[in-house]
Amino acid sequence: MKNNSYVTLELPVQWGDMDAAQHVNNTVYLRWVESARIKMFQKMQEGKFEFGKIVPILAWQECKYIFPVTFPDQVVITLDVIELMKDRILCEGKIHSKKHERTVAISKTLLMAFNSEESKKEPLPEAWQKSFTDFYGSSLF
Amino acid sequence: MKNNSYVTLELPVQWGDMDAAQHVNNTVYLRWVESARIKMFQKMQEGKFEFGKIVPILAWQECKYIFPVTFPDQVVITLDVIELMKDRILCEGKIHSKKHERTVAISKTLLMAFNSEESKKEPLPEAWQKSFTDFYGSSLF
Amino acid sequence: MKNNSYVTLELPVQWGDMDAAQHVNNTVYLRWVESARIKMFQKMQEGKFEFGKIVPILAWQECKYIFPVTFPDQVVITLDVIELMKDRILCEGKIHSKKHERTVAISKTLLMAFNSEESKKEPLPEAWQKSFTDFYGSSLF
Amino acid sequence: MKNNSYVTLELPVQWGDMDAAQHVNNTVYLRWVESARIKMFQKMQEGKFEFGKIVPILAWQECKYIFPVTFPDQVVITLDVIELMKDRILCEGKIHSKKHERTVAISKTLLMAFNSEESKKEPLPEAWQKSFTDFYGSSLF
Repeated sequence: MKNNSYVTLELPVQWGDMDAAQHVNNTVYLRWVESARIKMFQKMQEGKFEFGKIVPILAWQECKYIFPVTFPDQVVITLDVIELMKDRILCEGKIHSKKHERTVAISKTLLMAFNSEESKKEPLPEAWQKSFTDFYGSSLF
Repeated sequence: MKNNSYVTLELPVQWGDMDAAQHVNNTVYLRWVESARIKMFQKMQEGKFEFGKIVPILAWQECKYIFPVTFPDQVVITLDVIELMKDRILCEGKIHSKKHERTVAISKTLLMAFNSEESKKEPLPEAWQKSFTDFYGSSLF
Repeated sequence: MKNNSYVTLELPVQWGDMDAAQHVNNTVYLRWVESARIKMFQKMQEGKFEFGKIVPILAWQECKYIFPVTFPDQVVITLDVIELMKDRILCEGKIHSKKHERTVAISKTLLMAFNSEESKKEPLPEAWQKSFTDFYGSSLF
Repeated sequence: MKNNSYVTLELPVQWGDMDAAQHVNNTVYLRWVESARIKMFQKMQEGKFEFGKIVPILAWQECKYIFPVTFPDQVVITLDVIELMKDRILCEGKIHSKKHERTVAISKTLLMAFNSEESKKEPLPEAWQKSFTDFYGSSLF
């Protein structure tokens, strides 16, 4: 059963996050989602996130941009694991604007395990599987 | 008929494009594709790209990461318009590493026209439609 | 007399702020100080900071890097106006790491007023001078 | 005698390098100078730049902003070592705009050697001193 213990991260919009179109640049939304992913790994490991030989690598991501974010604002990113497969992890992040009180973007992310020494994909390490199961519940498999 | 006159942009990888995992950060690939999109608009307008009241806005994008890019390298981004609809433009960008002589990422992008004064979507301006038809050929519609 | 009402801004370090040397990249420290400068302008105007014809422009900055910042951490930036001249503003920002309980960088910044329509320097607008005097006290002149 | 064999690096301005003030953000100039520094180390080592136990670390930098850079443009960064001390290296980078045919910024940089395992400063490694002397000439000391 799933615990719904998703990760929440609140970040301030910085003025410099905006580009010449005068709203936050598209790449910044994905930086925010990345920060939420890292927080997820931190929480699972209950400590500092460290890259060993096997590292999580981004295989694919998408982002649907719903409403333009501008400075000043605070965004709240909620990240959830939607599906945990034997060799990949599908996450969904939602970005909420506190100023506009609405979801401004939704991003899906596919993570894989990558052996950085041998430069090849690996099945998800058992430690990761255990952490995810403990954190999100066994129904993910 | 389509002219296949896609946009090509070559960019150097900068050392600072790499993150603590020691390959180029996922957001940088999308910055590269953005730069290719801007070049497409520039070429269509045969001059400096300027934002007026109606601006192209990113409605959605995805990126499939195939191979990690590291510094030093040169990347070549080719951007093509796959489908031109009445209210949106679907583009595909391929990122090629000169060092590895392979495609390292493929990104699809959906653009819409956005009225920046009234903060609402618009149909694609006629000037854009004409530019795209002239540039890419009428088969896009 | 000076009010010592300096600006304080707390920001989370994001994992992606680190570069391949695995500490926060040198440019990020200057982004943090920029964010504190913007907050200073916001507070002085008691509302949303907007660029008109005359905009503050960075004429010069320096940064002394004292201790490397890593993720995870929270940084606190305190920004003070050291000297207000007829045509420029000298600020000093100190960056403090909450994890290491120490100052990690000190940055000085020289701002000028720039006429963005005519592309030339201007004396500081009276509204800016009044705001600074109200905010920081008359001894700045 | 000094060889004047300074490093030159040409980089395209990307649209996304601009911020909401619609010229290139102040931090990007320092990213460009960083890229020139890395190229200097690459050339000295005649190969790929790799961080070992002792890494070059930025102790201080300043930048004088002379003229605002906008997209599109090409910038040429020339980096020179001004003074090589026993424990630090002083560099000067000049950023030239090809569109405006002028110097747009001048940046000085102070590098030190940092032992990343023991987290402390070190004298410049002999290998670095030899490389600098070979590359820039003995008069630097």
